[in-house]
Amino acid sequence: MAKDTLSAVIDDAELRARQQLAEAWFVELRDAIRAEFEAIEDEYVAAHPHAGEAGRFEETAWKREGDAGGDDGGGGVMSVMRGRVFEKVGVNISTVSGVFHPEFRGNIPGTDGDAGFWASGISLVAHPRNPHVPAVHINTRYLNTHGKRWFGGGADLTPIYPCDQDTDDFHACLKACCDAYQPHYYAEFSAWCDDYFTLKHRQEKRGVGGIFYDYLDDGDFASEWAFTQDVGRAFLKIYPQLVRRNMDAPYTQDERAYQLIRRGRYVEFNLLYDRGTLFGLNTGGNVEAILMSLPPEVRWP
Amino acid sequence: MAKDTLSAVIDDAELRARQQLAEAWFVELRDAIRAEFEAIEDEYVAAHPHAGEAGRFEETAWKREGDAGGDDGGGGVMSVMRGRVFEKVGVNISTVSGVFHPEFRGNIPGTDGDAGFWASGISLVAHPRNPHVPAVHINTRYLNTHGKRWFGGGADLTPIYPCDQDTDDFHACLKACCDAYQPHYYAEFSAWCDDYFTLKHRQEKRGVGGIFYDYLDDGDFASEWAFTQDVGRAFLKIYPQLVRRNMDAPYTQDERAYQLIRRGRYVEFNLLYDRGTLFGLNTGGNVEAILMSLPPEVRWP
Repeated sequence: MAKDTLSAVIDDAELRARQQLAEAWFVELRDAIRAEFEAIEDEYVAAHPHAGEAGRFEETAWKREGDAGGDDGGGGVMSVMRGRVFEKVGVNISTVSGVFHPEFRGNIPGTDGDAGFWASGISLVAHPRNPHVPAVHINTRYLNTHGKRWFGGGADLTPIYPCDQDTDDFHACLKACCDAYQPHYYAEFSAWCDDYFTLKHRQEKRGVGGIFYDYLDDGDFASEWAFTQDVGRAFLKIYPQLVRRNMDAPYTQDERAYQLIRRGRYVEFNLLYDRGTLFGLNTGGNVEAILMSLPPEVRWP
Repeated sequence: MAKDTLSAVIDDAELRARQQLAEAWFVELRDAIRAEFEAIEDEYVAAHPHAGEAGRFEETAWKREGDAGGDDGGGGVMSVMRGRVFEKVGVNISTVSGVFHPEFRGNIPGTDGDAGFWASGISLVAHPRNPHVPAVHINTRYLNTHGKRWFGGGADLTPIYPCDQDTDDFHACLKACCDAYQPHYYAEFSAWCDDYFTLKHRQEKRGVGGIFYDYLDDGDFASEWAFTQDVGRAFLKIYPQLVRRNMDAPYTQDERAYQLIRRGRYVEFNLLYDRGTLFGLNTGGNVEAILMSLPPEVRWP
């Protein structure tokens, strides 16, 4: 076997090993999040016996049609819980592969010669019932094209009634996660988050920020992969604390009405600006999984 | 006075006369619609004494900042009624002028040498409370740029539970309006409407169609102007009939729940695809007036 054929085989084996690693992690993180969120539902119902039954996640699997029309395009599993604390929370994992459409190719790194791609990730949006429990979004993903591989993701908090303690704790947890890897990560990724989650037409931020990163590829796969896993772990550490801290707070009908109006901003952002949403809808993604992020009840009075 | 100076003065006077004519008509049509919709509210409350008070339109005027930063950009008046029959109905009239931003200029006829524009129009969206009363949208407008002038608009019906009689009557009324002008109008404009009001990501139509037209300029100003007025009159003739026919129909909580889900499709269309909405939001239009079209209460369960 010639040397460059051998190294190509090794590279290929390493690529596949990394893909399997990523895919398995997103399943593991998804399972841990589901268990924790269901435990919160159980705690709430134990404390409020008249609240009804504790919510449970329901799974729906979907397949993506292959780009040549077959069933080799991958797919995903959507998990949705409609509970007492979590009015609606969705967690999607997906692993898809194929060929980028010509109109997107120019925007994606490493697709000059070959437009093939492979991507795996997890995405979560939670809309709590109590207006004093902040909504949250996380997403982490691993992508490779023919010429590049990178990580992307982030976590951001959208309180209806921002509370300094919650905001500070959320940011502190993400900062600690970032600081364990690169000193510039937090400053860069939190600024990117503020910039990204802006409703330009209203000159408003969607929430109180967090971190956002994309095209992360500084050449150290092991470190970047560990960081991406730690973003998921940081979320799983801090967000349940914020939920438990606020889920018993009393609220008025006026506060509930205001929550439904603020949720309209969430819809406006996701349908007008969110890259993942627009990319998914424009490339034949699974509509129900993509729009799982939309709040269960909304008002534009 | 040289002959071409004189003809330029005459052209300019004619242009201004046409602008005044258009602007005055949109006010007249708006007033007639408001009166008819308030009369429907009165009839409903007379028949259902426990329904609460009949709705009334509330006006909010807004100014558009001039493109040089002054207050000469025009403006509009938004009228919103939150009533018993009409859960939310908004009627906007506006007259704006200025200079198209460079990124839009290429898409707009007659802006090669001079990017100035003048536009006046009326836009209405009604979201009735009863799921058996169809939602409706109309818009008619007159625009001129340096090199062109044209009409655009249309009317389309979005029932929650489509009913052949309502659909047929709505289309018949618009067809009669079209047929009085050009034999090809109805076939062309109703096909355009079906194509335009499609949610591509769901491969669904938003409603049951109507008519849609743009860049209407066949050289006969008088005829096209009369047609544009008659589209408004046709709407005012047929839609109140459909409302009165259905507003007392009993409905279940399940039907109401389904209505709120279908309204989500309306939001998806307006924020993902609607040209007027995206154009307005991207060019610093009045956000409240533009998003007046969004339904009062929506669910993505």
